[in-house]
Amino acid sequence: DIRQQLLEKYNISEPEYKLIETVIIENQPHKAGQQWKFAGALYFVTVVVAMIGYGHSTPETVSGKAFCIVYAIVGIPLGMVMFQSIGERLNKFTSIIIKKIKKLLGCNNTGATDVNQLCVTGTLSIIVMTVGAAVFSHYEKWNYMDSFYYCFITLTTIGFGDYVALQKDNALTTKPGYVALSLVFILFGLTVVAASINLLVLRFMTMNTEDVKTGDYEMQD
Amino acid sequence: DIRQQLLEKYNISEPEYKLIETVIIENQPHKAGQQWKFAGALYFVTVVVAMIGYGHSTPETVSGKAFCIVYAIVGIPLGMVMFQSIGERLNKFTSIIIKKIKKLLGCNNTGATDVNQLCVTGTLSIIVMTVGAAVFSHYEKWNYMDSFYYCFITLTTIGFGDYVALQKDNALTTKPGYVALSLVFILFGLTVVAASINLLVLRFMTMNTEDVKTGDYEMQD
Ligand SMILES: [K+]
Ligand SMILES: [K+]
Repeated sequence: DIRQQLLEKYNISEPEYKLIETVIIENQPHKAGQQWKFAGALYFVTVVVAMIGYGHSTPETVSGKAFCIVYAIVGIPLGMVMFQSIGERLNKFTSIIIKKIKKLLGCNNTGATDVNQLCVTGTLSIIVMTVGAAVFSHYEKWNYMDSFYYCFITLTTIGFGDYVALQKDNALTTKPGYVALSLVFILFGLTVVAASINLLVLRFMTMNTEDVKTGDYEMQD
Repeated sequence: DIRQQLLEKYNISEPEYKLIETVIIENQPHKAGQQWKFAGALYFVTVVVAMIGYGHSTPETVSGKAFCIVYAIVGIPLGMVMFQSIGERLNKFTSIIIKKIKKLLGCNNTGATDVNQLCVTGTLSIIVMTVGAAVFSHYEKWNYMDSFYYCFITLTTIGFGDYVALQKDNALTTKPGYVALSLVFILFGLTVVAASINLLVLRFMTMNTEDVKTGDYEMQD
């Protein structure tokens, strides 16, 4: 294979190849940076608690893995409590806005239906992603499509790790403002997207058990 | 730096170094395998819909990324509906078992409290993880601790991707039984762990608003 050809061409021994391998892998951008200093560690715990799990930095030692497990057992439910609490407040806030707008428009039924809520929260999610994509595209020098893909994969908590913010030019240590912005983007964006997904799930779940409410028909008027 | 020293020692040119880099990265175990044949693609969509996102295989092209986004928008809510439906049935089933056991033990209050539920689902989660860890340790030749870490990181949907099952020895194409077992493990395990986390979150959320129910005290008897 091509690997063997390269070894023979340059007369590289197996242990030396291993060294080159290590150097190359260490030099890959997303593995670089000062991952375990304060800003990097804060980024890591945010990525764990939000269940994004980019894998750009992971515990190597047995005690590191054990601590990560214990930390996640406590952190994930507490994180979810926080996201749900903020999400509930967001939903209450949007329903008040919807009611006021409906009153202004002179609708008969001024209640905020779940479809209304879904539209507002969904729109908010799209705004967060499109604005976020522009910001990350600027800082990370990604094209807009890649940047939008990064925002989407992050805020749905899939977190492939093929694109990870804050990994270039030692941004974690040299750009504290950008670090703060990224963390706020993750925390706020996650709340909005999670609220949208929850409303969508609720909509699917109640589809079979409930008749379509009369309020829902108003949307089509 | 060490990279420059290696280039000079072996008289490797920059484009040739790029080639070596590509070969090494392609040869990394988790990037290898037939990721986009049927079994690999099935594994990929499971990893997306369950929001695990190992990142062991990711879309490279613009159209691939766009399709992945659209697929996730539809797939994730539908996946959550499925997980929640199964989770609800699981909770109903465990509450029936708890009631029967309490009746047999002659308890005054035979209702299944949320703490009872949490204990049962939590125990089930631990069983799934410990048994799963043993199975993956056997197939993947990981030590038990690494294997347990893999199961935990997978079932909490963090999905770092530092350990990914089905990546050795072309397992995706040569071991259909193991592929099926892995997918069932992910789907069933996720349901159980998600139900546990939901009960834990519910417990935290109701802690401030409700007084501790009398039923909860029975646990300490
Ligand atoms: K994830
Ligand atoms: K992930």
